[in-house]
Amino acid sequence: MQKENIRLGIFGFGCVGQGLYQVLQQTQGIRADIARICIKNPDKPRPIATDLFTTDRALILDDPTIDVVVELIDDAEAAFEIVTTALSRGKAVVSANKKMIAEHLEELVALQKEHGVPLLYEGSCCASIPIIRNLEEYYDNDLLTSVEGIFNGSTNYILTKIFDEGLDFQTALKEAQDLGFAETDPSLDIEGWDPKYKLVITLLHAFGVIVSPEDVFHFGIHRINDHDIAFARQRGLRIKLLAQCQRQEDRIHAYVLPKLINGQSHLTDVNHEYNGVVLESAFSESQLFVGKGAGDRPTGSAVLSDISALTYQYKYEYKKRTQGQGAGLSQESHPLKLYIRYEEEQDLNWEDFLSIEERYQSQSHRYVIGTIDLNTLAQAEWLQHEHINILGL
Amino acid sequence: MQKENIRLGIFGFGCVGQGLYQVLQQTQGIRADIARICIKNPDKPRPIATDLFTTDRALILDDPTIDVVVELIDDAEAAFEIVTTALSRGKAVVSANKKMIAEHLEELVALQKEHGVPLLYEGSCCASIPIIRNLEEYYDNDLLTSVEGIFNGSTNYILTKIFDEGLDFQTALKEAQDLGFAETDPSLDIEGWDPKYKLVITLLHAFGVIVSPEDVFHFGIHRINDHDIAFARQRGLRIKLLAQCQRQEDRIHAYVLPKLINGQSHLTDVNHEYNGVVLESAFSESQLFVGKGAGDRPTGSAVLSDISALTYQYKYEYKKRTQGQGAGLSQESHPLKLYIRYEEEQDLNWEDFLSIEERYQSQSHRYVIGTIDLNTLAQAEWLQHEHINILGL
Repeated sequence: MQKENIRLGIFGFGCVGQGLYQVLQQTQGIRADIARICIKNPDKPRPIATDLFTTDRALILDDPTIDVVVELIDDAEAAFEIVTTALSRGKAVVSANKKMIAEHLEELVALQKEHGVPLLYEGSCCASIPIIRNLEEYYDNDLLTSVEGIFNGSTNYILTKIFDEGLDFQTALKEAQDLGFAETDPSLDIEGWDPKYKLVITLLHAFGVIVSPEDVFHFGIHRINDHDIAFARQRGLRIKLLAQCQRQEDRIHAYVLPKLINGQSHLTDVNHEYNGVVLESAFSESQLFVGKGAGDRPTGSAVLSDISALTYQYKYEYKKRTQGQGAGLSQESHPLKLYIRYEEEQDLNWEDFLSIEERYQSQSHRYVIGTIDLNTLAQAEWLQHEHINILGL
Repeated sequence: MQKENIRLGIFGFGCVGQGLYQVLQQTQGIRADIARICIKNPDKPRPIATDLFTTDRALILDDPTIDVVVELIDDAEAAFEIVTTALSRGKAVVSANKKMIAEHLEELVALQKEHGVPLLYEGSCCASIPIIRNLEEYYDNDLLTSVEGIFNGSTNYILTKIFDEGLDFQTALKEAQDLGFAETDPSLDIEGWDPKYKLVITLLHAFGVIVSPEDVFHFGIHRINDHDIAFARQRGLRIKLLAQCQRQEDRIHAYVLPKLINGQSHLTDVNHEYNGVVLESAFSESQLFVGKGAGDRPTGSAVLSDISALTYQYKYEYKKRTQGQGAGLSQESHPLKLYIRYEEEQDLNWEDFLSIEERYQSQSHRYVIGTIDLNTLAQAEWLQHEHINILGL
């Protein structure tokens, strides 16, 4: 079953690529050699001197001796082209590009089937936590009821700094950026796009469902202000940006939302750049997985494990999808209890509420605690107002 | 690749067996049916009425239509006979019997190879946490450096009650027994045998090493008294019974020891009947897995996942062993920093210490903090004295 070392063609040579290069030089255990590294800019100074560099992608994609393409570039469009070309030519692919994968799941699953080659992407979800592999391999029975987690390291770092050290939002964001945890354009993280892409990928491996990112409701931490933090502190709660999907009978719901959680939650103590994922199942109750969720090394470790798995002919079976659970998200009612901060009474559409439990007003701000259906919330135009914030309860 | 439902022959019908029975009745997702259940005592009242019961093990072992034997009995000797007979007759086996497996790893690996049938035993290690599957499948490169964890739920429950609620040892133990977390004969748990069996199994899947349980040093929580707890509290530490194995270059060390840990450790907040496992690797840094480690449902969930995996022809590859890492434990020096409580100066062999950092004496007790080599400790006769306790630091 085992053959000679596999030959890798790498696209992109940022920190993940460089770490991978060094680890593969150092270790004997992984039967993989780097054949060529395709870079965009040949004039950029590189910390590693090697004659493997090329700017000609054909030297990888057209080379029949290269078995595996490792795609590590930023640009989601270019990445999609590289990945689909590689798969079409019978090459296995490893990628950690969550946006690209989430937006093209249907095609990427079909291409793997058509050409009989695997695409692995553990690094696209919660970096170092092997969540896809566990959902695919271990929780492959129909008893799984819920996946909930902190899927984004940089927002978790920001929220930790705000709650533990009293930093304001902008200072905490700047720190996260300086440490390399946040993108230069931080909106992907703080508006909740990044955890949503990961949630879309998770939905396929958890429940066999492929959905478009635009069909999943998301809300980020970008509108959190001192009033919200004071509210959380008064009630002994912390705010965490959570991605979650649940199955109740045949109905599957999914969304990304900052939530107020208490010390009872497994996720309360998952802080800084760590990610945490809680799986609930009928028989095993809750399982928690924790690992670093931001930074190059955690992502690199997942890429490395995928490469290692390819040396053993591993591929995703997409069992749950073939088991016929591939329904889609439910449009049926899914009530969410929310804290909503606003300024004027006319800011909200009060008819959207299923019930109201508390109302508060002062000279500086107002809030209401009540229940709104997920589908109503997803269509609420008032949510666009910049001075409105929502937190799950 | 997929065939009809597999047919299960179950040995033992305690809580795990009963839960399994109910789940398989309820769900369609797992393609497995129970063909027969072998019980010891036909006169014992059973909560479930079924005509599947037999007391004749041959009705399972001799039945060629039964594909999989699920071994869920207490007696390690009888379990070994059932498991080896089943494997020899070409049946796949699922077991959670850690003592039996740890004591016979070499034979059980050989039997699987000889007869080409898998034996899965995820439930034997940390109940609901899929640690074996993750070590086998995901951390299958040689970058793994350490596995450390709370491997025993009942002792963790006892220590949590002592530290959080001020219970004394006997009361906490009684509570754990009443909740079904501890054995009626609690010595397996509190003396550290149970986590040692799990550590022996872990060693094979983490580092490819098969060792006899008697070659692994273990020490339990049975001698912890108020002085030790006061010492921990004064220094802001908690005591956790930890199983750990580490690799430094080619040297592998393993032992079970109660340790004093601080808030920096991922395991400090793993409390009550939960287990926690921390994996350290060169590239991914630390990963934490948390799940319930005692009780029938967590074990049942692991058994169920193993059955589900068998429907997809899953087997352990024992990759690390075949990669030639199967060396054995190192006899080379491995210094351990220890807190040692004792009564009289002549209780200890002072020549065993590599260094001494602190000494304390009062009318009630004495302690010393110093460093002793693991191999010296394993042979120390003074450790048999009942009024001596050791804790790792």
